[in-house]
Amino acid sequence: MSRPGDSMTPLELALRLPVIGVVRTSHHELETTPIQAGLNRAEHGTIEIAEPYRHGMDGLGSFDYAWLLSWLHRPRDPEGPAPLRQVPFLLRRQQRQMGIFATRTPRRVNPIGLSLIQLLEVTSHAVEFAGVDLMDGTPVIDLKPYVTRFDQPPGKPRCGWYDEITITDGTTPGQLAQP
Amino acid sequence: MSRPGDSMTPLELALRLPVIGVVRTSHHELETTPIQAGLNRAEHGTIEIAEPYRHGMDGLGSFDYAWLLSWLHRPRDPEGPAPLRQVPFLLRRQQRQMGIFATRTPRRVNPIGLSLIQLLEVTSHAVEFAGVDLMDGTPVIDLKPYVTRFDQPPGKPRCGWYDEITITDGTTPGQLAQP
Repeated sequence: MSRPGDSMTPLELALRLPVIGVVRTSHHELETTPIQAGLNRAEHGTIEIAEPYRHGMDGLGSFDYAWLLSWLHRPRDPEGPAPLRQVPFLLRRQQRQMGIFATRTPRRVNPIGLSLIQLLEVTSHAVEFAGVDLMDGTPVIDLKPYVTRFDQPPGKPRCGWYDEITITDGTTPGQLAQP
Repeated sequence: MSRPGDSMTPLELALRLPVIGVVRTSHHELETTPIQAGLNRAEHGTIEIAEPYRHGMDGLGSFDYAWLLSWLHRPRDPEGPAPLRQVPFLLRRQQRQMGIFATRTPRRVNPIGLSLIQLLEVTSHAVEFAGVDLMDGTPVIDLKPYVTRFDQPPGKPRCGWYDEITITDGTTPGQLAQP
């Protein structure tokens, strides 16, 4: 870790993140992959759990939902660092920019995906799930059970610019690029 | 990235994760830090946004809640890799083990924290929030807006072993260690 002189905060963390599994879906191109698991609950996918981590799956089958944390960066992606202001997929038609921390865009400073998946079948070596927003081969870096008490805010929270637009189930970046 | 011969899945990702900010709270010891933001909504904390990332905050102030993704590993922690089965804080009294992917324990294969925070005031350089489950100085690796349509499952999902226990607001690991 590097540290600036006047602070205990590191500028970046040099890490090796173990890959606990890989996502298998029918999607191979970003432009035709649905943008959010919650908008594509009908489609099913699979997580193949890597052999060293299978003992960690015990108990997950008693939950209906889980958070799938994934690493979204593709090594062959020719683009550079994520711009701090971007036009999110859902605002492509308006060509309206937002700060990336006010969006769920996959092109982030740290491209960690957060997908709410419905657990259909859990074994030690695989998870069958519903709610697909990931491309085939995406590395999984964590799985956490969905716990309503922790993960559901009270009331009806304001959701910024998402409250101002119409969101269609199953929508893809490619569809949103069309006028 | 290293790749096994028979698969396109890397075994681990060698990365440099930029730290986009640092959490400021009143907590300096794990045993006295509340275990979940959702169980400690009354307490306030601050995120100091690092200078290079401030343009990414535009628009976040229109949301009531956000996901705070943090890096939970402390370099001075003498313990080795996270065991795949652990007694979660909330099951300390029962001394009951669970697979880590069925728990929200901070000691994970990849120790990424996922905290649901209530946004009180958002500027380009700082976030005042309610809902504290992090120690002072914790590095922030991502902020994502909470979007009900994406992040709230339908109905009343089963939440595994969490459904079987009594959970008290503001509880800490230290309290749960007492008989």
